[in-house]
Amino acid sequence: MTTVTPKNSALSQQVFDDIKKTRNTNYINNFWRDLSHNDEELYNTWSALKSVMSEGEIPYLYKEMIYVAVSIANNCNYCIHSHTYAAKKAGMTDVQYKELLSVILMANKTNALATALGTQVDDVLDTSKEGELRK
Amino acid sequence: MTTVTPKNSALSQQVFDDIKKTRNTNYINNFWRDLSHNDEELYNTWSALKSVMSEGEIPYLYKEMIYVAVSIANNCNYCIHSHTYAAKKAGMTDVQYKELLSVILMANKTNALATALGTQVDDVLDTSKEGELRK
Amino acid sequence: MTTVTPKNSALSQQVFDDIKKTRNTNYINNFWRDLSHNDEELYNTWSALKSVMSEGEIPYLYKEMIYVAVSIANNCNYCIHSHTYAAKKAGMTDVQYKELLSVILMANKTNALATALGTQVDDVLDTSKEGELRK
Amino acid sequence: MTTVTPKNSALSQQVFDDIKKTRNTNYINNFWRDLSHNDEELYNTWSALKSVMSEGEIPYLYKEMIYVAVSIANNCNYCIHSHTYAAKKAGMTDVQYKELLSVILMANKTNALATALGTQVDDVLDTSKEGELRK
Amino acid sequence: MTTVTPKNSALSQQVFDDIKKTRNTNYINNFWRDLSHNDEELYNTWSALKSVMSEGEIPYLYKEMIYVAVSIANNCNYCIHSHTYAAKKAGMTDVQYKELLSVILMANKTNALATALGTQVDDVLDTSKEGELRK
Amino acid sequence: MTTVTPKNSALSQQVFDDIKKTRNTNYINNFWRDLSHNDEELYNTWSALKSVMSEGEIPYLYKEMIYVAVSIANNCNYCIHSHTYAAKKAGMTDVQYKELLSVILMANKTNALATALGTQVDDVLDTSKEGELRK
Repeated sequence: MTTVTPKNSALSQQVFDDIKKTRNTNYINNFWRDLSHNDEELYNTWSALKSVMSEGEIPYLYKEMIYVAVSIANNCNYCIHSHTYAAKKAGMTDVQYKELLSVILMANKTNALATALGTQVDDVLDTSKEGELRK
Repeated sequence: MTTVTPKNSALSQQVFDDIKKTRNTNYINNFWRDLSHNDEELYNTWSALKSVMSEGEIPYLYKEMIYVAVSIANNCNYCIHSHTYAAKKAGMTDVQYKELLSVILMANKTNALATALGTQVDDVLDTSKEGELRK
Repeated sequence: MTTVTPKNSALSQQVFDDIKKTRNTNYINNFWRDLSHNDEELYNTWSALKSVMSEGEIPYLYKEMIYVAVSIANNCNYCIHSHTYAAKKAGMTDVQYKELLSVILMANKTNALATALGTQVDDVLDTSKEGELRK
Repeated sequence: MTTVTPKNSALSQQVFDDIKKTRNTNYINNFWRDLSHNDEELYNTWSALKSVMSEGEIPYLYKEMIYVAVSIANNCNYCIHSHTYAAKKAGMTDVQYKELLSVILMANKTNALATALGTQVDDVLDTSKEGELRK
Repeated sequence: MTTVTPKNSALSQQVFDDIKKTRNTNYINNFWRDLSHNDEELYNTWSALKSVMSEGEIPYLYKEMIYVAVSIANNCNYCIHSHTYAAKKAGMTDVQYKELLSVILMANKTNALATALGTQVDDVLDTSKEGELRK
Repeated sequence: MTTVTPKNSALSQQVFDDIKKTRNTNYINNFWRDLSHNDEELYNTWSALKSVMSEGEIPYLYKEMIYVAVSIANNCNYCIHSHTYAAKKAGMTDVQYKELLSVILMANKTNALATALGTQVDDVLDTSKEGELRK
């Protein structure tokens, strides 16, 4: 059950066509279909996502892994499934998936520990002083 | 203010020595000092972290970026500072840091949207059927 | 699947009757039914909710929107559905729903950014000094 | 301590000037200053925020209250202070602030309860069938 | 910096006197002082807390440990400090504190794993069928 | 739908046999089955969980209640069901379950309040000075 009704507007159709072309598929995910209830948001979100997730100084594959990590931390079941799928499609190996989960679990563990202990940030960790850091 | 009192045991000292050697530094972060109140947990956490964060099929630099992403999602101020520092020290460029924040923000946005809409997971996203995926 | 068994006590029945009268319906939501396993908690929660959500200096419609915003941030699927429903029933227009989602997404974005950057709170934001604020 | 170094670029200055004019102030909040390390993100975030938070079918005051609610749920200390400030400046009365906190606490409570009980969403709550809802 | 101004009303004073008597102390924590800006909420919260946290079928000490666990998961720095303090004052030993942290970390880990894997709930875990469970 | 494919390795079988023996059952929960896609993680997680959740200075029953509390705060539906089940099987009475929910709700409430108010931690709550505390 979703909270909205997809809308088949000209703008929605334009975005759907671009998704199909960009991803070389005929399938439009439920997320984009649901988002079409607000076709401006659909257009803005898709445009921004296409740009943000393009190959950059961080390779696309690692961007998808970061996406999976955030989605797990935010407990978004839909996003976990769609971005684990995307990462695997982009070539994430079984070993990389294991490493990804290990890093996420380790971060979760030390996040909880530092929070539980109320640990104070060390002065030496000040990354706003970049000159210092890179000496 | 922290919730615990560091303990200067032989096991703590052994871990501190290994941290200094591994990281080529004389400085022990507050996190490890605080964790020494429970020197077995200190030993286990450090050993696991050293193994998990080593160079693997996911390069160390990207592991640190994933760590930063999880720490932001979990809102752990200490961990954000220590792993942003570690990522920069490992060579994260300003452009990569911008890309990292962009991916995190995009993931956060679509996480919130999919949650708000209650979007149902598409059958085609079933990554447990790996044969299908990799055709 | 729920973790509890509804209980058809006299107190539960009294609350159900009040819900039906207050909301002018014959339908009792699953939430209230499940909560009847603990009929005192049912009574207390319903009484408090009826009071808190009544028309006040914040109009009821905006109270429902705030409820939706919190439920999305807390990722409570049940509550997102029931309060999006309630807000629409109270007259939330399509444009208002779009504005609501936009505000939630913007808040999420700047929340994540401020957390990522570790931004320090400005002294001028001290709202405990109300005299200052309202000059 | 922040993770970034503000950058005094022409684009940053342009945004700062617009913030000063729009808000009729000479003070630039730490958030915008920190964000200037990435002046494109600064420009995009400020432009979007100005648009999203403008008076609309949801009055500005209630938009700020929704912002506060999300910021509390996301535990963003900076954002809680800056948007509680903004809401008070926009005229939020003490009674409205009490009502706001009451709604947030009630939402939090029923969010936790519905999550704890694993309550199933009622079919009647399907807001994608808007015709039904508005009968 | 807090968002509110404490209010020294007769009702606040009555609650403070009860806190002092109940806890056998002359010190009023910042939390209760800040909450006095809304003396009805102060009264209600203190009354409910006194009742909920009293010795019951769950001993007081374990109630405080549960409180600490929730506060860590919710990342409430104030609450972590005040309830770790309360638990220690109630007799929590160093070994119990270590066990508490271990259970919290283990729960966090399997929470993240089950979320990452999208694991489906087993039919046999249906605790609403209590007769079945207790056979 | 899960993100992984269970793997029937010798190590998985060994863990499954130990689970069956330890819990005196023939049923393996979906969580352990899903985790077998990574049989080393399965082995490590099960071994650690068996140790952490054993009877200690915190009785097993209260450990399960703490586990339920964390799982609710983290919104892990699977874990809520499996550990509410485990707690009930370990003898959690209906009254204890009500008390557990009451403590969780109270902690959630004061967590949100302290976060909303930005309350500063009192110096007297410094539990790192244990000598002081235990006077």
